[in-house]
Amino acid sequence: MTAPDPALAIDGPRFWDTVMRSGEIGPGKAGGLRRLALTDADKAMRDLFVTWCTEAGCTVTIDRVGNIFARRPGGDDRLAPVLMGSHLDTQVAGGKYDGIVGVLAGLEILRTLDERRVRTKRPLELVCWTNEEGARFTPPMVASGAFAGVFDVDWVLDLRDDDGLVFGRELARIGYDGKTAVGGRAIDAYFELHIEQGPILDREAVPVGIVTGGYAVRGMHVDVHGETAHAGPTPMDRRRNALVGAAMLAGAVNEIGWTHHPTEGKATVARLVAWPNKAGILAEYAQLTCDVRHAERDVADRMWAEVKAAVDGCARRANVEMRVAGEWQFGSERFDPGCVRLIREAADRLGVPHRDILSQAGHDAYYISRIAPTAMIFTPCRDGISHNESEHADRDTTVPGVNVLLHAVLARANR
Amino acid sequence: MTAPDPALAIDGPRFWDTVMRSGEIGPGKAGGLRRLALTDADKAMRDLFVTWCTEAGCTVTIDRVGNIFARRPGGDDRLAPVLMGSHLDTQVAGGKYDGIVGVLAGLEILRTLDERRVRTKRPLELVCWTNEEGARFTPPMVASGAFAGVFDVDWVLDLRDDDGLVFGRELARIGYDGKTAVGGRAIDAYFELHIEQGPILDREAVPVGIVTGGYAVRGMHVDVHGETAHAGPTPMDRRRNALVGAAMLAGAVNEIGWTHHPTEGKATVARLVAWPNKAGILAEYAQLTCDVRHAERDVADRMWAEVKAAVDGCARRANVEMRVAGEWQFGSERFDPGCVRLIREAADRLGVPHRDILSQAGHDAYYISRIAPTAMIFTPCRDGISHNESEHADRDTTVPGVNVLLHAVLARANR
Repeated sequence: MTAPDPALAIDGPRFWDTVMRSGEIGPGKAGGLRRLALTDADKAMRDLFVTWCTEAGCTVTIDRVGNIFARRPGGDDRLAPVLMGSHLDTQVAGGKYDGIVGVLAGLEILRTLDERRVRTKRPLELVCWTNEEGARFTPPMVASGAFAGVFDVDWVLDLRDDDGLVFGRELARIGYDGKTAVGGRAIDAYFELHIEQGPILDREAVPVGIVTGGYAVRGMHVDVHGETAHAGPTPMDRRRNALVGAAMLAGAVNEIGWTHHPTEGKATVARLVAWPNKAGILAEYAQLTCDVRHAERDVADRMWAEVKAAVDGCARRANVEMRVAGEWQFGSERFDPGCVRLIREAADRLGVPHRDILSQAGHDAYYISRIAPTAMIFTPCRDGISHNESEHADRDTTVPGVNVLLHAVLARANR
Repeated sequence: MTAPDPALAIDGPRFWDTVMRSGEIGPGKAGGLRRLALTDADKAMRDLFVTWCTEAGCTVTIDRVGNIFARRPGGDDRLAPVLMGSHLDTQVAGGKYDGIVGVLAGLEILRTLDERRVRTKRPLELVCWTNEEGARFTPPMVASGAFAGVFDVDWVLDLRDDDGLVFGRELARIGYDGKTAVGGRAIDAYFELHIEQGPILDREAVPVGIVTGGYAVRGMHVDVHGETAHAGPTPMDRRRNALVGAAMLAGAVNEIGWTHHPTEGKATVARLVAWPNKAGILAEYAQLTCDVRHAERDVADRMWAEVKAAVDGCARRANVEMRVAGEWQFGSERFDPGCVRLIREAADRLGVPHRDILSQAGHDAYYISRIAPTAMIFTPCRDGISHNESEHADRDTTVPGVNVLLHAVLARANR
């Protein structure tokens, strides 16, 4: 094992062509992507990705929740592997870059190493995590969470989308119900490259953000139970309209976001369903999904307590019952100082401008950081716009981050 | 034409058996019905109803919006007919009685007249109006409205349900896309029997409510336009979350209902849809359906102005655009004094206790009252519960109303 050539670099145009090729699979309605997890578009992308990985000399395995691992042997193949990866699924109106750039950066690195016949001491694995977005099956990052032991595998396989379709059956339908156990094996380290999804790098024209940790995020589903009744004659004081309770809570959560806006806190309600949800009949059921985010864990906890107080208050005011139907939290994790240092050293060595940054979004890296030394690299996206079809990233401001990833991974894998 | 025998009465057990038979078609999940307009269950009920009408000696025609007319010839068949009727569709979680009792009361009257060979001077027609509930295709009472010239026929045929299915195509699918023109012909009078859907008759143990008019109802759809963005990093002051705007408006409409609760006003939001409506991405679109109801037309107008002010206020506060996407109103109509008098005289003659009452719900009779002398009879339902699968009516407190209907219709048809 010789030290890697500092001049070793990926093939930028080939990398970007691959990103553009992915951008054709599952087109949205406005130039972006609609590639929800376990849909036909997701299958088409996965199939192509597996082909690419095989062509790059890797062995592909799929685990029981559909995570794809492309393995490149190491000099000592008994050593725990170094992982790179992210996700290929998108929001219902998402962009072409999001997690995709991270997975395809890993692919480009494997292609480069294969082409240059660079060997590493440890094996490398490129991973595509299933359903990171949580756009189809909530909560998000459910398959990396299962890998890290945060979620039970059977619970994940039994998740339902808003049409009642079951995760496990949809996984089998697209042929990605793998046989490999989920997690439970040693990982030397995990590196994830992702677009920032915020405006800082773009504004400051810095191509690499070294993610030192994430905003603390706490999310939950709230079930609201009322009673159907005629929307006409039923007096206001006999109504138990679940939709009204959920709407009150949505308003209250939004207010909590504004209360903490001066310190850059956020509170979000992005999903609300009601049943029967028809004019003329009061709703007997509603469910709302909300989260709060803050850089300071203590403040996030305080916001969370405020949301829970609002749940009780809104239930009383709307004369309905509310019950927290599921909670999740992530982002309080701090990344591994050793891995962060490898990224910083690689950027310095390559002369790539960089800054430290916190992530405000959720990433698979959060869950993986619970079981393995982990770090993340952010690359810029225009105006910080993401989860929107107009999301945009440039090749020239993305490639430097991929080369930093390459050298950080090599350094770790040759330890 | 001899004067009808005052002892002429319907066959109560046969009538109730028919209601129970209908109660088996399109079962709900809790003992009631889920028989949405133009579904397979609606088709099954319509087919059976047509068979019953034919067996009772009637000629059946269907108009272009699927309204079913069963005609019994009069002594002078050139005279304008007297109509009876209501609707056979239900809410998504509705009862077995609602409009159904009214249609099947008319059927029982036709059977009774057929059996006793009673002739009337004017022809009689029993009508089943399509999609009264508005549970599948909003707004409600759309086909009686089309008959009365309130809605354009092509506009009705182009309505879409929440799955995007088109009214006209669904009508053709179940074989009820009739060829007869919608309305545009002389109607001598229209009588509709319906359960009260409120608690008054049940509480006072009075079997017949003579409906003198309705609560003024004003309804609308509001379209909310925002922009998708990541639910994480997007600062509160750059968010344009359409769902939050719609939720704020839902809360505000509910408050308007409470403001007018002391004078028995009501304001309702029973439907709210959002897109993408997924955790992790702010909604770019939402639509909310709401209405206000008050016995006093002026107060209803005032409530309506309050809702419109709330639309503007919520749009500003949520940083979204809101647009009224459709409005409707009904219930300010007062019923025909001559028809009301015929009902009162019939009840007095039969010794049936009665009281005057206002309707708080919408009924096909409102629209028909715009083109023909119209009146309504209410019968009791337990605790006033309706649009709920536990809706309940008793045979013994319903049959007196049907006999009152029989004699009022006979009196009108022999004029």
